[in-house]
Amino acid sequence: MSETKKIVVMGGGTGTFTVLQGLKKYPFELFAIVAMTDDGGSSGILRDELGVLPPGDLRQCLVALSESPEILRDIFNYRFSKGSMKGHNLGNLLISALETMKGGLDKALPYLNQILALRGEAIPITFDKVKLVAKLENGQVLSGEHLINTSKFLNKNHLIKRLFTQPKAMANPKAIKAIEEANAIVIGPGNLYCSLLPLFLIEGITKVLRDTKAKIIYNVNLMTKLGHTDGFSVFDFVKKVEEYIGNEVIDYVLFNNKKPSVAVLKKYAFQGEIVKVPQGKQDRKSKKIFIGKNLISKEIYEQKASDLLKRNLIRHDSDKLAKIISEIIK
Amino acid sequence: MSETKKIVVMGGGTGTFTVLQGLKKYPFELFAIVAMTDDGGSSGILRDELGVLPPGDLRQCLVALSESPEILRDIFNYRFSKGSMKGHNLGNLLISALETMKGGLDKALPYLNQILALRGEAIPITFDKVKLVAKLENGQVLSGEHLINTSKFLNKNHLIKRLFTQPKAMANPKAIKAIEEANAIVIGPGNLYCSLLPLFLIEGITKVLRDTKAKIIYNVNLMTKLGHTDGFSVFDFVKKVEEYIGNEVIDYVLFNNKKPSVAVLKKYAFQGEIVKVPQGKQDRKSKKIFIGKNLISKEIYEQKASDLLKRNLIRHDSDKLAKIISEIIK
Repeated sequence: MSETKKIVVMGGGTGTFTVLQGLKKYPFELFAIVAMTDDGGSSGILRDELGVLPPGDLRQCLVALSESPEILRDIFNYRFSKGSMKGHNLGNLLISALETMKGGLDKALPYLNQILALRGEAIPITFDKVKLVAKLENGQVLSGEHLINTSKFLNKNHLIKRLFTQPKAMANPKAIKAIEEANAIVIGPGNLYCSLLPLFLIEGITKVLRDTKAKIIYNVNLMTKLGHTDGFSVFDFVKKVEEYIGNEVIDYVLFNNKKPSVAVLKKYAFQGEIVKVPQGKQDRKSKKIFIGKNLISKEIYEQKASDLLKRNLIRHDSDKLAKIISEIIK
Repeated sequence: MSETKKIVVMGGGTGTFTVLQGLKKYPFELFAIVAMTDDGGSSGILRDELGVLPPGDLRQCLVALSESPEILRDIFNYRFSKGSMKGHNLGNLLISALETMKGGLDKALPYLNQILALRGEAIPITFDKVKLVAKLENGQVLSGEHLINTSKFLNKNHLIKRLFTQPKAMANPKAIKAIEEANAIVIGPGNLYCSLLPLFLIEGITKVLRDTKAKIIYNVNLMTKLGHTDGFSVFDFVKKVEEYIGNEVIDYVLFNNKKPSVAVLKKYAFQGEIVKVPQGKQDRKSKKIFIGKNLISKEIYEQKASDLLKRNLIRHDSDKLAKIISEIIK
């Protein structure tokens, strides 16, 4: 009998939730390494008001890994639609309360694991409270993930030149260990500048990603994001991720090659455009394996009135992603 | 082997929590019938903002009956001390969210039972949304439990003449059944006009209390409440409760006969005075059994900055109460 494979999923938000939901059905040992620079919506309010770490991305990973009764997962995902709690996820409130009660998110995590009966582990990439900052090509500076995510100032003429955190953040040793010991590392899908690249800004992460023997799999987004990745092709996404990691470490690139209907694209045009499918190999020397499939979920997601943030409405199919990943790994 | 005894505890708030905490250690089948007219503090805000039933008293009973890991009970009792959630109990938010999710508190209760692994049952006395109203002796009307509880207008010259709900509320059939089938019914301790008497205003409750064969035990409060029960003796408390029930149904009266130190009384004088111990039998014809003991808890309770309401600081000792009750019942 072969040893259980260790899979690390890196990201934050819906993309990571989707990957974990799919991979949970396979007999892997799962680790979710979660971005901690979110400062918008419910997480942002809790950061500001309670001085806690942003709970939102962590919550999504916890729920994805949970094997507790469905009602507990529903509670963690419940979003208040009225009153002074409007927009807050109950799970975010629970995580923040536990962090305050126990005197730190690191001390709260074992209790969250217990309550949610986790299959696997959710690992905040850092316990340092830091801000994400973007310097634009014209020299302007955007401070805070939420601002970077939503700024109407960003457009084709004002692209992000450099991303960094203020102050510098040290990696959670558990994140380092998980990457070191992994058989495979799955990056994304996820908001490139606000969920994925921030992971590589945390001190210690890029070195261990460059050194690990794990297979590194990158899930390219379905859509570009206005002002962030306008006109990006699959190659552009890969290039940007490797630029931040500091080496050509990606072994497999999973991308969607199915164009949604014009009607769907029109409806969700505010999100951006469908990512361009690569034509031929990017570089003859590259040893990367590019896998293009129809990866779009058939489920339709709608923006809810209680959502404080705009949410991705065209999403990956978690089972399709997991199936491809599991075939790569075995 | 004798059948497990069914004990119904009626009230709301800290007093009921205290009784249940003690009785939980005995092999009784426990039912907590909970007042639902609270509209102050966290419960009041949730009623107003979310249109839910008041969760606060129910939460205390649920936690008291819970056999879940301590951390879940701590979460239910956690009170936010900062931010827009300030003063809210996390448990109140959880109950209200579940009520909204499931489309009714009655439908939410099985899930709360599951999550908190209840030993026994917490039964809201009604699922009707009603307001508590007090008519004073001078004809003035105070509308809302919170106002009745905290009004500075109430004093020795402005006593409550009549208490009622607006509109009338029907009893939860489960409350009726529990009272009918009980071996013993424990009333109080608790805020007389805001937690105990409101129970007897719910249609159907007093009749079944008058008809039940259960032993009825009444725990008299330790202290009087300014503007409500000024100068009340043990006899006065008993008389008022039976006036609202409509008959002399109480079999046992448990009262405290230990006077706290002058220093303690002085510190907590804002609460009221220590209840006067009865001298001799109230009435030669009465068959009630009066049991006077030192019932004061040695634990000191302090008002917390996060508390939206003034809380009782001199409390009953739950083990002492439970011991006496268990001896009456066996």
